[in-house]
Amino acid sequence: MATGTTADLRRMTAAEVRARIRSGALDAPTAGMADGFVQANLAILPREFARDFLDFCLANPKPCPLLGVSRPGETAIDGVARGLDIRTDVCGYKVFKDGVCVERRSEVSAIWRDDLVTFVLGCSFSFDHALLHAGLAVRHIDCGCNVPMYKTGIACAPRGRFAGPLVTSMRPFPPAEAIRAICLSDHYPLAHGAPVHFGDPSAIGIADVSRPDYGDAVPMRAGEVPVFWACGVTPQAVLEEARLPFAITHDPGHMLITDIRNEAVFDVGSLVADASVLL
Amino acid sequence: MATGTTADLRRMTAAEVRARIRSGALDAPTAGMADGFVQANLAILPREFARDFLDFCLANPKPCPLLGVSRPGETAIDGVARGLDIRTDVCGYKVFKDGVCVERRSEVSAIWRDDLVTFVLGCSFSFDHALLHAGLAVRHIDCGCNVPMYKTGIACAPRGRFAGPLVTSMRPFPPAEAIRAICLSDHYPLAHGAPVHFGDPSAIGIADVSRPDYGDAVPMRAGEVPVFWACGVTPQAVLEEARLPFAITHDPGHMLITDIRNEAVFDVGSLVADASVLL
Repeated sequence: MATGTTADLRRMTAAEVRARIRSGALDAPTAGMADGFVQANLAILPREFARDFLDFCLANPKPCPLLGVSRPGETAIDGVARGLDIRTDVCGYKVFKDGVCVERRSEVSAIWRDDLVTFVLGCSFSFDHALLHAGLAVRHIDCGCNVPMYKTGIACAPRGRFAGPLVTSMRPFPPAEAIRAICLSDHYPLAHGAPVHFGDPSAIGIADVSRPDYGDAVPMRAGEVPVFWACGVTPQAVLEEARLPFAITHDPGHMLITDIRNEAVFDVGSLVADASVLL
Repeated sequence: MATGTTADLRRMTAAEVRARIRSGALDAPTAGMADGFVQANLAILPREFARDFLDFCLANPKPCPLLGVSRPGETAIDGVARGLDIRTDVCGYKVFKDGVCVERRSEVSAIWRDDLVTFVLGCSFSFDHALLHAGLAVRHIDCGCNVPMYKTGIACAPRGRFAGPLVTSMRPFPPAEAIRAICLSDHYPLAHGAPVHFGDPSAIGIADVSRPDYGDAVPMRAGEVPVFWACGVTPQAVLEEARLPFAITHDPGHMLITDIRNEAVFDVGSLVADASVLL
């Protein structure tokens, strides 16, 4: 990579990585970059749908943990990342028309609109990071693949045109390690928090864990239990289902790297209060 | 009950209940009394064994969460309960000689010795209380019986003459409620904290959950998972195994009611530091 080694990118601050991305010098999945900083999912949609989408996130805080919401047209969100230009500071975007992805881009300046509202949502990278630091082995990281994700039979609380099934990610653990993973992730309410289920996948409507709906299957060993967390793919799937005339998301794996530290503990309400008044 | 109704006892402070017990007016299991105050297990043993027992507790903090340790001969432990007289303020004691219970008493003033050291250990009542307040149904409470307890194949870390298997208590829950119970109990490290296991009992050496080693069996329903917490019976069993010439414990169910609030968060180290210097 012309801009530095993987180790360099890991040691950089979030602002340093965002500057590289903005300059066009960096275009790669962001896992492991700016170690210790929260990475986030992105949903950008027209103002007329923003109020309902905000309500959807607030009603479904486990899959849709709100880190920040912009004002309409605004490209900065100071509470999340200082000096942010949301049009250029993520290295992969997907553009949707009528719920269908029509384009992948490395910036969205040329198609920006003054009515767009940006939602920044927590991502499981934060608690994966915490699990690794606690000495737990995270299977999809050990396997060097994407986490397996499944649509469930659990319905999200619908708001306006936004509705759909909860999507979960799965990590297998022996029970004693599952308990540690449950307790650790519970300390990251803005990264999906504690799991929603463990054990029998059919109890939440998953027919076959070896066939995920998104991501990659991972091997399970004797004595391990599958543990299911609410997943940031949920809002993306819901956004597609809603068939908005126009929307932008990040390209999965190419996350917004925020200035928020993984170690910080947040109060969801205080972050959101400002935006909910303005929409 | 001559001293007041169950509701009266529930609303009393810990100090008020202890005063009734000291006066001899109250002799009953303490579950539900002085709502919101931490109840505790008791182990009283001669000074010559106290250093090893302290080390055992520190090496096994899940079954033996230390709330306080007296100086030799001292009958007060101000950090746990103001104005405490440990000889009279618990309504049921068991007296052991050579590891065998030789007597049950309602006070131990007549047999008190100047070399006795009192250990006050957290108890699962605190997190049962938290589970109930969170709206979770706790099976043995619903059944009006004692919690089922099991010896496991997990060995405690031995210290001096103190060694033995970890004893666990079991509460069955559907997985989603088990996750909530795990997270809630993790917030009570001085009441055994998060569980040590869930699911297959044989994985921790329990042959048959319908046949507990202590307490009462409880029914399990379809879709429920047994969840196993480290249990305060562990130090009692270890104390018996050690066959000390003399020891006193509380009579199970007849706990020391402390001035510590259930809601308080504690640092085990700071509570113990003082005593470990003095032993």
